[in-house]
Amino acid sequence: MKKILLSFFIFASINLTAQKTSAFRVVPLGVKGGIDESNLSSYMVAPAGTNNYVCLDAGTVHTGIERAIASKAFSVTAEEVLKNYIKGYFISHAHLDHVAGLIIVSPDDSNKPVYALPACMKMLEDNYFNGDAWANFGDEGKSFLIKKYHFETLKAGEETPVSNTSMQVTAFPLSHVNPYESSAFLLRSNDNYVLYLGDTGTDSIEKSNKLLLLWQAIAPLIKLHQLKGIFIEVSFPNEQLENKLFGHLTPKLFMQEMQALNLLAGKGAMKNLPIVITHVKPPTAHITQLTNQLKLANNLGLTLIFPEQGTPFGL
Amino acid sequence: MKKILLSFFIFASINLTAQKTSAFRVVPLGVKGGIDESNLSSYMVAPAGTNNYVCLDAGTVHTGIERAIASKAFSVTAEEVLKNYIKGYFISHAHLDHVAGLIIVSPDDSNKPVYALPACMKMLEDNYFNGDAWANFGDEGKSFLIKKYHFETLKAGEETPVSNTSMQVTAFPLSHVNPYESSAFLLRSNDNYVLYLGDTGTDSIEKSNKLLLLWQAIAPLIKLHQLKGIFIEVSFPNEQLENKLFGHLTPKLFMQEMQALNLLAGKGAMKNLPIVITHVKPPTAHITQLTNQLKLANNLGLTLIFPEQGTPFGL
Repeated sequence: MKKILLSFFIFASINLTAQKTSAFRVVPLGVKGGIDESNLSSYMVAPAGTNNYVCLDAGTVHTGIERAIASKAFSVTAEEVLKNYIKGYFISHAHLDHVAGLIIVSPDDSNKPVYALPACMKMLEDNYFNGDAWANFGDEGKSFLIKKYHFETLKAGEETPVSNTSMQVTAFPLSHVNPYESSAFLLRSNDNYVLYLGDTGTDSIEKSNKLLLLWQAIAPLIKLHQLKGIFIEVSFPNEQLENKLFGHLTPKLFMQEMQALNLLAGKGAMKNLPIVITHVKPPTAHITQLTNQLKLANNLGLTLIFPEQGTPFGL
Repeated sequence: MKKILLSFFIFASINLTAQKTSAFRVVPLGVKGGIDESNLSSYMVAPAGTNNYVCLDAGTVHTGIERAIASKAFSVTAEEVLKNYIKGYFISHAHLDHVAGLIIVSPDDSNKPVYALPACMKMLEDNYFNGDAWANFGDEGKSFLIKKYHFETLKAGEETPVSNTSMQVTAFPLSHVNPYESSAFLLRSNDNYVLYLGDTGTDSIEKSNKLLLLWQAIAPLIKLHQLKGIFIEVSFPNEQLENKLFGHLTPKLFMQEMQALNLLAGKGAMKNLPIVITHVKPPTAHITQLTNQLKLANNLGLTLIFPEQGTPFGL
């Protein structure tokens, strides 16, 4: 009997380990959608078991790395994380709360690529890395080219290798107050995928089909259980007036989009799918409100993740 | 005898109070010249005894206000400080580490002016508040004008009232990698003055006379003991190579400029003059090094102040 019980515990333990195995490790460097310069959208993501991270958006970088080290997410120096762990940046759109950290750390960074869709890359070159707002640390654009960053313009829908990692990326355009373009990035590591969306409005309000096209592209990956998680913004609680959404989602609009995706993925396919809620906008009372609204509205059994700056998790 | 002793103590106490009386109150919102997004150049300054502050540069705003509240510099909410205590912003130049905070807080701010010299104002409008990098919260420039901020372009050398304060301001151009222009702001409250310099190189290396002209303008105020303090940058320790200064000062170059000013102000006039050292660049080891170098080189008896984020002081 003792032997049987021991075997059961060993089996249960192995099973638990198997359940816990992650394909990706995420270290949030910034999780908010406004006002706090020390905590703006940025997520380090690497294939689990490697230190080959990319930064998905770069609103806050250095302060986020310091917080991550303080919470034991990394056991090396901030300089080591910045220079050697971050292999490249993916910028979803050129609004400053998604780019400020990249600009501020650039003098202390190492050589690496910055990836973006054409419209965003042009804005990075025209507005920031232009010799007026900041020295041009890139390898194309105006002013003297320092060539620390390789500006790699992505083609929408085309899979591209991510330098110095084992990952591939496919970018998709999003609508963020039409015709302003934002982006989603689908990262692949072997047969595992993770999807990151920059700021986006819902198709109905944006008068766009960008989210529908994205859902059509990723629904097959959900069916195959290859998509390990989705990062998506929910900026405001439901009470935000439609004419004050500024191209963002509320819990209600988010659930509408999840239902649209669910229709394509097939009944039950999204149950337990990790959804990382990004870009929550202060004040704190609004964040609490939208968090509660999301939990209440979640009738698909999504695993909602509310990330905290510096606290790592697996997907 | 007791009466005489008491009178003496009362006299000594009054005298001490008189010595301590400040013309201005300063609350540093950010004190560093790089990499840490949560602590970049920004100083709130008000006539003592009022809450009518201006922000001198705006690298970090919200995080700085939060730190100031945590250290009991203010007993009101962060929203109150942002919306009602800060009456306007003075931007010395358009590099992002001097402007990021203003941009990030703008959606949550109240209506107020942003002051700058023409070249800087044009860069703020062309690069940031342009509908691509950020919505245009100003009242001139590209894209839809939200008109929350009044963009008030200053004329160099001409005194202008600072709205909703009892202060006046005079701006002076500085050279920050010639021909890139930075600015100094001379604030006046009655007969008291305080001078803030944005990033600047030394005249000799910049091949410029901008600092000399500034020193000529303010030397009479030092003679009259009306200048209560100077904010000036010292970014790097003396070991920084001249071709890696990027338009900044070292302790050695700073003291050269102070000697030039001293020649104009007259022997002994600068003794005990408060000098607030700004824009110190990490790593911490470099900051310690340049601090020690400054203390050693200070043969004019300057009162060197090394500001800390959120910790108020008087001038």
